[in-house]
Amino acid sequence: MTSLASCIFCRIIKGEIPSFKLIETETTYSFLDIGPLARGHSLVIPKVHAEKLHELPDESLQDILLIAKKIALALGCENYNLLQNNGKIAHQEVGHVHFHVIPKPEASAKEGLVIGWPQQKPSMDDLKALAEELKSKM
Amino acid sequence: MTSLASCIFCRIIKGEIPSFKLIETETTYSFLDIGPLARGHSLVIPKVHAEKLHELPDESLQDILLIAKKIALALGCENYNLLQNNGKIAHQEVGHVHFHVIPKPEASAKEGLVIGWPQQKPSMDDLKALAEELKSKM
Repeated sequence: MTSLASCIFCRIIKGEIPSFKLIETETTYSFLDIGPLARGHSLVIPKVHAEKLHELPDESLQDILLIAKKIALALGCENYNLLQNNGKIAHQEVGHVHFHVIPKPEASAKEGLVIGWPQQKPSMDDLKALAEELKSKM
Repeated sequence: MTSLASCIFCRIIKGEIPSFKLIETETTYSFLDIGPLARGHSLVIPKVHAEKLHELPDESLQDILLIAKKIALALGCENYNLLQNNGKIAHQEVGHVHFHVIPKPEASAKEGLVIGWPQQKPSMDDLKALAEELKSKM
């Protein structure tokens, strides 16, 4: 397991910092967010340390959503968001990949994730060219 | 494969509605969002039809993040959000599970996902009781 001595989430996984643990598997650790956006806001993290999603090995990614699903079922909420932020300007606050499971109890900006959606209007030609460009890189 | 004749994403998977396809695997399909929040905004969806994350079989969830990672690498962006919404009040617009990969080119509200974070302040006792409650349900 790759871990970082100074990383708060690596220290939580090792038990050096206490947490309200939910489920631990071979590759993941999950716990309650202590600054929740709504009751039940939880985090699922890979045990391997990486700052961003694209830096993680595939084997660290395969169980994450299964655990998020288990947590959503235990929460019993019908409305919720799954969110994973990469980079400070994308709202990432801790430099260790983490997936938020955030209940949305009601349609207000007081609780749960608040989302703004500044939709763009690209042309179909631009989208076609972009899809070809991305496919050539995969 | 479970699909729904009236679902726009099931129809995209079947090729009945055109899309700017990126990668298709046995269990997933990915394509460009035609109303992107930023250039490169992509969607990864399971082929099995389900409205919400917790309704999907585990085998539909294991490849999703691997594909999101491939797309993030092809996009080559350092800052981005991964988002999956469940329920209308949680901003879900199409009733078939979909994961947004959304580049965040700059720290402005003009492009990319805009996030509001109404953090709550529960007591440690409340969090402890909640963690026990959730663990008993898993």
